Order: sequence, then C-alpha cells, then structure tokens
Amino acid sequence: MENRFIRVTVWGENVHEKRQPEVRAIYPQGMHTTIAEGIKKHLGDRVEVRTATLDQPEHGLTEEVLDTTDVLTWWGHMAHHEVEDRVVERVHERVLSGMGLIVLHSGHWSKIFIRLMGTTCALRWRDDDREIVYTVNPGHPITRNVPPVFIIPQQEMYGEYFDIPQPDELIFISSFRGGEVFRSGCCFTRGQGRIFYFSPGHETYPVYHQKEVQQVIANAVEWAYSPPKPRYATSTCIHSPLGWYEQL
Amino acid sequence: MENRFIRVTVWGENVHEKRQPEVRAIYPQGMHTTIAEGIKKHLGDRVEVRTATLDQPEHGLTEEVLDTTDVLTWWGHMAHHEVEDRVVERVHERVLSGMGLIVLHSGHWSKIFIRLMGTTCALRWRDDDREIVYTVNPGHPITRNVPPVFIIPQQEMYGEYFDIPQPDELIFISSFRGGEVFRSGCCFTRGQGRIFYFSPGHETYPVYHQKEVQQVIANAVEWAYSPPKPRYATSTCIHSPLGWYEQL
Amino acid sequence: MENRFIRVTVWGENVHEKRQPEVRAIYPQGMHTTIAEGIKKHLGDRVEVRTATLDQPEHGLTEEVLDTTDVLTWWGHMAHHEVEDRVVERVHERVLSGMGLIVLHSGHWSKIFIRLMGTTCALRWRDDDREIVYTVNPGHPITRNVPPVFIIPQQEMYGEYFDIPQPDELIFISSFRGGEVFRSGCCFTRGQGRIFYFSPGHETYPVYHQKEVQQVIANAVEWAYSPPKPRYATSTCIHSPLGWYEQL
Amino acid sequence: MENRFIRVTVWGENVHEKRQPEVRAIYPQGMHTTIAEGIKKHLGDRVEVRTATLDQPEHGLTEEVLDTTDVLTWWGHMAHHEVEDRVVERVHERVLSGMGLIVLHSGHWSKIFIRLMGTTCALRWRDDDREIVYTVNPGHPITRNVPPVFIIPQQEMYGEYFDIPQPDELIFISSFRGGEVFRSGCCFTRGQGRIFYFSPGHETYPVYHQKEVQQVIANAVEWAYSPPKPRYATSTCIHSPLGWYEQL
Repeated sequence: MENRFIRVTVWGENVHEKRQPEVRAIYPQGMHTTIAEGIKKHLGDRVEVRTATLDQPEHGLTEEVLDTTDVLTWWGHMAHHEVEDRVVERVHERVLSGMGLIVLHSGHWSKIFIRLMGTTCALRWRDDDREIVYTVNPGHPITRNVPPVFIIPQQEMYGEYFDIPQPDELIFISSFRGGEVFRSGCCFTRGQGRIFYFSPGHETYPVYHQKEVQQVIANAVEWAYSPPKPRYATSTCIHSPLGWYEQL
Repeated sequence: MENRFIRVTVWGENVHEKRQPEVRAIYPQGMHTTIAEGIKKHLGDRVEVRTATLDQPEHGLTEEVLDTTDVLTWWGHMAHHEVEDRVVERVHERVLSGMGLIVLHSGHWSKIFIRLMGTTCALRWRDDDREIVYTVNPGHPITRNVPPVFIIPQQEMYGEYFDIPQPDELIFISSFRGGEVFRSGCCFTRGQGRIFYFSPGHETYPVYHQKEVQQVIANAVEWAYSPPKPRYATSTCIHSPLGWYEQL
Repeated sequence: MENRFIRVTVWGENVHEKRQPEVRAIYPQGMHTTIAEGIKKHLGDRVEVRTATLDQPEHGLTEEVLDTTDVLTWWGHMAHHEVEDRVVERVHERVLSGMGLIVLHSGHWSKIFIRLMGTTCALRWRDDDREIVYTVNPGHPITRNVPPVFIIPQQEMYGEYFDIPQPDELIFISSFRGGEVFRSGCCFTRGQGRIFYFSPGHETYPVYHQKEVQQVIANAVEWAYSPPKPRYATSTCIHSPLGWYEQL
Repeated sequence: MENRFIRVTVWGENVHEKRQPEVRAIYPQGMHTTIAEGIKKHLGDRVEVRTATLDQPEHGLTEEVLDTTDVLTWWGHMAHHEVEDRVVERVHERVLSGMGLIVLHSGHWSKIFIRLMGTTCALRWRDDDREIVYTVNPGHPITRNVPPVFIIPQQEMYGEYFDIPQPDELIFISSFRGGEVFRSGCCFTRGQGRIFYFSPGHETYPVYHQKEVQQVIANAVEWAYSPPKPRYATSTCIHSPLGWYEQL
C-alpha cells in the first residue's frame, strides 16, 4: 500500500437530523459527522476526512471535491429524489474511474446505488428490531478486528429478498428478531471502482456510535481505496489496430 | 423442467441489412431471421420463436408481445440510440421479473445491456480477424454439445478490457489474431431474470449461420428460461410486520 | 434439455435408522427411501431413481452403478469415517467428469464434500430449533415452485461460520431461533460436475417428508444433471503442439 | 492496514537450477532468490523476506518457520511428488488459518494447490511461446502499477481448459502465439486464507526478472496478507448452546 493518506468524503443527506429532534439527540452534528469521526478515530493519519451534505451547492460534490476524493461514503433516506441527476452521473463516472464508494443502510435506495447495480435494490423492512451480524468471509480485510458475531441492540429490520446482483464477495449476513436474514455486507467491483454496501445504521438508533460498526466502515475505506490511476482506455469503445498494445 | 414450450422473441435492429448490400447478401431476411431459424432448428418443439424489429411500432416490443415472451434475444449496433427509453424501461422491468435476455455481439453497447450492468460496457475492437472460442466452464449447460474449442473463420475483434461487472459465471474466453482476449460468454442473474452475453456475431460475416454459434444460442435460450412466476414482493420496499411470512 | 430421463442414485448411510427407534419411526424404510420417493414424486418420468447404502459391497457405489448414475445424492452422519477412501476417489473422479452431486445436511462433513471443497466444511450446530429458509437468488432454477420463505418446524441448528469456499451461486439463507444464520443452499461447479449443498434434513425430524424440501431436492437434481459427455482432455496435463485444436 | 511488516517465505523446489545449466544461467542463485529479491525491491521495508527449499529438513517449512510466515509463495515442478504429505497438511492448515499463499506457474500441479482447489488443476501446455497478459479487473489491488497489457517475450504456453474452481476474482487472462487463452491470474479465498495463482514463470526463461511480473507478485503479497488473528471457532464443528455469541 502506498504511504499517502486516503482522502475520504462522508456524504450525508442531513434532513432527518434537522427535522426530527429524536434523531438530533443521537447525532447532534448530523450522522455524517459521527461517521466521519469514526473513520478518523480508527484510521488516524492514514486518512483525511471531510463531509458534504445535500443542502450544499451541488450537494457538496463538485468536480473539485471529487477530484480530491479517493473514497466516498453515502447515507441518504427521505430525500433520495432530491439528489440531482447530474451529480449522480458525476459520482457514477468517478466510481467507474476508481473512486471507492461505501453505501450505508438506507442508501440502498439511492439513485447512485440503483444506477450502479442495475436492479431495483428493494428489500423488506420493519422498525424496532435487533440485528446480529455474522462474518461469512473471515479472510476478507473488511473483517479485520471485527468479532465473528456482534449485536446491534436497536436496529431497523432489513430483510431478504434484497434485489441486488450477487455480490462479488459476501462478507456479512445478519438476522433479526422476526427471524429475517439479510446480506448486510456486500462487495462489488465496477470498472476500476470498489463498492461496499453495509446495511447497519438507522437515524433513530445510535448505530454509528457502535465500535464494531465504525471498525467495519474504517476497514471498508481501506479496502475500497485505490491510488489514482488513468482511466482505462475503454471508457468508450476504442478502435485498436493490430499491435496497439505495443504502443501503450 | 416443465413440458411447456419456451416462447422466444428474437429482436433485430435490421438496419445494416437494409442499407448495406454486403450484409443483405449474407442475411437476406435479416440477421434476426437467421438467428430465429437457428434456435428453431436446435430446439424444435421445445420453442415457439418469433421476431421483432426496430422499425415496428414500439420496436415490436409491446406489452402484449412481452407478456408472451419467456426469452428475448437482442442484436443492435448502429441504431442503439433510436431505441425508445420507455421500451428500454419495459424490457428492464421484464428481465428483473424473470424474462431471460440474450445479448449478442454489438448489443453490448445497447441501452438495455448498459442499464442492467451499471457500467459502460465499452471494449476494444477491430475489423477483419478470426476468433477462437474456448470453454472455461465445461459443467455449464450452455456448453452442451459445444466443442471445447471452435473457430469462427471471419470475425470482428472484440478485446479486453471489457467494462462489465465480473460475470456470475464465465463460460467462454476468445482469442484473436492480434493476440487479444475477450470474455465472450458471460452469465448474469439480475432479479428473477437470467442474462447471457455472447460476443460472436457480426453483420458482415456469416457468424449466425455457423452451427456452434447456433448451438450456444439455443443452449442459452434453455438456460435463460424460467417458467413465469409472480414478481417477488420486493419489486418495491415492503413494510413487513412481525410474522409476515406466515401469511404468504 | 434432452428427452432422456435422469438416472439418480440416492445414497444413505442408513445407520441411525437401524440403531435409533425414534429415527426409524420417522423413516421406517430409511431416509434414503423417503428422499428417493420425494424425487420420484416431483419428477415422475423425468427420472429413474434407485438407492444405495453404506452396508452394501463398495457401499453400493460400484463402477457399474456410477456408470449409470447422472446425479448422486449424499446423506451421511455418524459413519463418515467408514466410507472407504477408494470409493471417495471414485466419486470424486465422477463428479469432475460430469456427475451431479447433491450433498444433504450432515453430509457437509463427509469425505467427498471436504475433498471437493478443499476446506474443513466445519460449522456450528445445536439440536432442537426451527429453521426459516429464504430465497436469495429468485432467478435460479433451484427455486422454481419454492416459496420465497418457508419454515421447517423442527430442525437442528446449523450456523455460521460455515467453512466452505464462497459458493458460485448462493441460493438460500436460513435463520434459527437462537438468531443464527446459515448459507443453506449453495451451488458449486467443479470440473464438469455441478454440486449443490442443501442443509435442511436431520434424522430425528421429518424434514424429508416436507414438500418444500422435496421440491428443492428435485429442482437440484434437474439443475445438477448434465448429459454424459467425454471427459475434457485436461483430466491430466496434455502437451498441445501448435494447431492442436484443429485436430479435435 | 497495520504498520507492521509482512513476513514472506519464498519456497522453491530448486531442482532444475541444480541440474540444468541453462536454468542456472538465468537463475544462478535459484528462482526462489530472484523471486525474493523482486518482492524486496518492490515492497522494501514493508516486508521481511526469506527463502526455503525442498532439500532442507521438512523442506524448510517447519512449524517454527510457518509460525512466522504471513505469506508463502510456491514454485515447484519436477519434484511435486517429493513434497511430504505432512508438510502439505501443515501448509493447508495454515492457509485456512489465514496465511496467504501465492502459487506460481507449474505450482498449479503441486499437492498443496490441488488439495486447496479440490479439482485436478490440469491444463494444456507447450514450450517456446510468447505470452500477452491482459488485466480484466482493473479495480483490483493486484493490478496496481501493472499496465493494462504486457508481453512476456519467451514463455511456456499454458492453455485452457484449466481445471480449477471458478476464481472468486479473475484478474488476468493471457493469450499465446498458438491462439490459446489462459486464466493467468486468479484469486481464491479459503477459510481465513487468501490464495493467488499466477501462471507466468518458467525455469528456462527469465520471466521472474521481468518488472511487470515482479510487480504483480509484490501486489499479490500485499493482497494476500492478513494480520494474524485467532483461528475461527469452526476449525471443527462446535456445539453452540443458545446465546453462545453473547459469551464470545
């Protein structure tokens, strides 16, 4: 791994936090701040972390910001439809060019995740449950320092069928009190970009304050990071005369 | 497997055939007709095959046609942009609901394939080459009665990097005279639908007349077929109170 | 699919049934008989089913029997170590040559499954639970006519971490009363052979009498079936002079 | 990633080098020395590298050596059968417990690789060719600083069908003058261990002196590395009473 730090941008919708006092009580500076602090706490000098939110110009995801982002984390819920399509296009293009993307919880229903997956990304849900998270790929770097099983005492239930492509690597499976199961940690590679979906995290519970959850997100930042490199020739179809590779 | 037949719709852009005499010479009734005949020849009473083309109302892919289609094959090239978005949406929804989809050759660049993959689906290309197709998954039903290696004497070169998600199952890899390689047979499952991408087939060469190519397409029709069943509840997110599954 | 029938051999250890009256009460003719009847009931004329047991010469798996077996199902538990290594070798060789293999429940710990997987195949377990089985790959033929969720009222708990390679296709995930999860339906391809592991089924519960379980096993028989074909040249390393494929 | 260094052991059969002058001319200190130097050159202080060879007691792979090995690389060819089974068992156990393993070229036919894969690992081959290596997973860390295509001027041909399980991630595909293709870079996870198979490298050609080959091996060392952690409970089947995970 290179010795340079990873530039992380934590994106938060930041709407629940402003409208619902019970959410603000748990995340007084917004969920994005808690997520950013968790990453910083675990990775220290390995990362440079900033945040961006929906209400900023271009949702805080300008060309300039993305030019200096190695890994983007995404939390959204009630305002998915307010995210501008041109920003979604821009993020999509960046992921295919190598920017890491970590999609959290209700972000499964975001425009960017649906766009990258090609499926509906729908699922079953219910409030007020408890989640148990099991590692099913203990050789994977996202599981480092994560116990084989851990419990999230209060959590929204997300249940199968979860309409996603089969993950390239399935890392976690969760269960809930109602007997539901969920593929809660899923790795995908798309183009030069690496994507991790992690379902724990709800606005009305202190999930992002929990140390195991923070550890997983920090691990995912490291896993999703790629040092910047040129976009592969095939961002469009390229006519390639005989011997083209000798000129590369 | 059920004893009912598989209802196949072979979709063809049918533009090259009308404009280029050299294409018409090879495919006088259009490539779609040759592809349909190849399927019929190999599967006989197992299938009912019809064709549809770009110039028909709704490109021949009306709700009624799709209601009675189990597997759709897709060949397009110069007119991808002329396919209406609402038809693409309709096909996308049908695939996720269980309709099989076989995307052929330049169809890699079609709106529907790009939509389902979530990536650019770009690649390298060059005219006037020869393709050798190797089976790398000999336990897969798409390889039945297909020799371990076969040669397509005249073929356009399609080369890596091919910007697709890692296939759920990789079936064929091809090489070309210029030394290029290509993942030429790729299986994907998306929602309830099964998708096979097969790269052989170019308008200026008689590829769809070749028996091995016909055999692969026929096998793919059988593989991609699912008997109709209700769409999974999670075509949208469903609130699921405790014990919901006891009422199913 | 070919019109010939599938020749299925249902292998049963048949030890618990002889020694434990409570097992005999549920499976008076042995579990293998119930499993065989379930396959026959669902597939009818599509199959020819026979059984074989540990106490027969060569465990009933002679060269002659395997020569006429397209799909083998395997249930064993307390006598895994009594299965002779030369029979394991023979079955291993057949699977790589294209025989389908369906490994049931405690068969996860059999010599043949461990040999094919290359891992320990260990797991967590507990008696006296209830299993809920969720489909996570609804486009897969093994899920045909299987409800999205079904309950097995009495079942042994099998829980993660289950030490297997990541399945080529994950079909079912189960949960248990204790909150455990398990990858309960897993597809693997090895050489020309297709392998399905299905965890439901315990000797002290009537699991193999349950219609959903029978349906899954019948679907798996169809999925795992390949028409006999010659073994690929590469059962050993083959020197291949230039142009070797033109002589095939 | 942790700040500690990675302890690498480069294992070499070291028989060709002693018997064949033309091999000794290319690798005067043995291939293992050249491979070790390449890793050291690319990873510097990130690694501590030593070598071990077949002719040492226990082939240089004692419990003590493996206790202090994070990643093991393996090159063998003419003497695979001389590797003692108890050493193979020991390495197998270590890989499942988290030691990384990089299998090079003719190591495909080693006891340890066959054991981990569960298949024959056979392939086609021919001397005296030229290999072109294409990246097909440009988001993967093993491709960092590796050009999209590179040429190995002199190389043995390894061709499909290569009898391995479908890799968890396919990284490289190669072509040869004879038109053959080969899955030349393959990632597998087994238990807690990560395995990379990389086919370039033959004793009679200076392949391990080539910088792109060295870069890939160095990247693979970093990818395969896991910080030591306790073996998962399920190295054997564990009875797990209700609530077991609350005591972990």
